[in-house]
Amino acid sequence: MTWIQKEITLKARPRGFHLVTREVTDQLPELREISVGLLHVFIQHTSASLGINENADPDVRVDLEMGFSKIVPEDFPYVHTMEGPDDMPAHIKAAMIGSSVTIPITDGHLNLGIWQGIYLCEHRNHASGRRLVLTIQGQGH
Amino acid sequence: MTWIQKEITLKARPRGFHLVTREVTDQLPELREISVGLLHVFIQHTSASLGINENADPDVRVDLEMGFSKIVPEDFPYVHTMEGPDDMPAHIKAAMIGSSVTIPITDGHLNLGIWQGIYLCEHRNHASGRRLVLTIQGQGH
Amino acid sequence: MTWIQKEITLKARPRGFHLVTREVTDQLPELREISVGLLHVFIQHTSASLGINENADPDVRVDLEMGFSKIVPEDFPYVHTMEGPDDMPAHIKAAMIGSSVTIPITDGHLNLGIWQGIYLCEHRNHASGRRLVLTIQGQGH
Repeated sequence: MTWIQKEITLKARPRGFHLVTREVTDQLPELREISVGLLHVFIQHTSASLGINENADPDVRVDLEMGFSKIVPEDFPYVHTMEGPDDMPAHIKAAMIGSSVTIPITDGHLNLGIWQGIYLCEHRNHASGRRLVLTIQGQGH
Repeated sequence: MTWIQKEITLKARPRGFHLVTREVTDQLPELREISVGLLHVFIQHTSASLGINENADPDVRVDLEMGFSKIVPEDFPYVHTMEGPDDMPAHIKAAMIGSSVTIPITDGHLNLGIWQGIYLCEHRNHASGRRLVLTIQGQGH
Repeated sequence: MTWIQKEITLKARPRGFHLVTREVTDQLPELREISVGLLHVFIQHTSASLGINENADPDVRVDLEMGFSKIVPEDFPYVHTMEGPDDMPAHIKAAMIGSSVTIPITDGHLNLGIWQGIYLCEHRNHASGRRLVLTIQGQGH
């Protein structure tokens, strides 16, 4: 049984949905040593979130940002407004999408579907690089 | 410490919310051998999702489909439309509901509440059977 | 490799978003013995949910309740209405937010961001205390 845990900081990104699979897995060469296991990716923030979605057409990312911003508008009668109009919608979107993803590891690689990638969902207009905690657990070969 | 991992394909289902607890657990006789552990169920698609919800009144599934389709309508100004009007709402619903569920295992069975079941949330009008990766980890008796 | 599993009942709370980090961790003195691991918190109900969100300004919790109740209104044309107008929205919110959270454990404590806490999201007007299944897995020191 193997446990590996790392903290990394993603590069800063603008508001929107961003594919970060490679940026995460580049930090995890140990994946190759796991025959069966799970990767847990956790974001230490409450105004950005992590998801799994399409890794191909970049228009999907544009539409995800548009769609979530229509569903969670900035003009709801929020009380918590001191950090700007994008802040409270960011907390709601983070609650909807979630703070972590868990992905199966099989034969040394993430067992994602061919169209799947890991998303950083950045809900703030101006954010710094987001901190992630990566936890691998599994059996070696 | 036991690790078991399987890939299965659910039978194809129409758009809507579907109870699949039995279809999943029928593939997992090994659950009986686990005294304490977790089951991770992962869907390898980005236009369907997995959730946990009520296992009793089928009207709840009807209302979930109606509700999510009102919240994420097909007439938003999407850019990614080449796969049909149900495609981009499917990606948004999948981001909301999520690609996996993790359920505690206790004394050889899934420790769900009495009203809980595993849902396949099928967001496309016409989809094939969805592929799942099932990962059990835990301690034997 | 350590596995610890407990079932607890949270005290009953009114409809809304509630910070329960302390109520959960007070039941888990064993966290201190884990150097690297994961905590899985699972709710055995389908009309309340678990999330991770801001632990500081209580106004965030007020706005989360307001926002989700606007996004998932009680006046959708629901079929499943026999348990009251707050019931079906509760199931939809639970599907959105999710039935469990998984949090990394590092050096004997939950490795949350400094602004993060565990939320009980209570979607019913009048609910009893909610049952949780807590599962710790990890390596000792």
